Amino acid sequence: MLDRLGDRWTVLVLVELSKGVRRFRELERAIPGISQRMLTLTTKRLCRDGLVERTVYPTIPPQTDYRLTPTGRSLADMVSALADWSRDHMDAIAAARSRWDQEHA
Amino acid sequence: MLDRLGDRWTVLVLVELSKGVRRFRELERAIPGISQRMLTLTTKRLCRDGLVERTVYPTIPPQTDYRLTPTGRSLADMVSALADWSRDHMDAIAAARSRWDQEHA
Repeated sequence: MLDRLGDRWTVLVLVELSKGVRRFRELERAIPGISQRMLTLTTKRLCRDGLVERTVYPTIPPQTDYRLTPTGRSLADMVSALADWSRDHMDAIAAARSRWDQEHA
Repeated sequence: MLDRLGDRWTVLVLVELSKGVRRFRELERAIPGISQRMLTLTTKRLCRDGLVERTVYPTIPPQTDYRLTPTGRSLADMVSALADWSRDHMDAIAAARSRWDQEHA
């Protein structure tokens, strides 16, 4: 399961759903660069894992939305914390890398 | 940075170092299946990121040990929590998958 967190799309879908219920189009707009095909694949996998629930409403045209299951929420909270950590430490890591590169040039 | 967490070796090294200071040999033994080359590469990357500190002692033969930096510890704590979550939910996810596969056969 941890391996899947290396998949950037999985992480971004989890982070977006941790903010609330989202329709397919809303996920698509919230995740720049994701193709319709990749978003379909990513949400399908998360549903199969029991982490996300997909609901289809019999409207015309049919509406579909996605929400975290309780298990999905517990994972998404940790993943969001990691994403925050990542953003907060990006500069420190970049600085460490250039220091290292200078010392090992 | 999050992408790197998809690298199983990086995760396993962080989890192991979250338990304490480790020598190269100790890391090697604690992580079954990792090659010497891959462990060298993984620890080097983590040192470059400023997450792990490598100390060489001028003994004969020289001793090397690895420990988390404060930044590394904050990441490793979250990664360990994720690894625990993963282990705790492995069965539930496997069950969800086989349920999904039956419903979609």
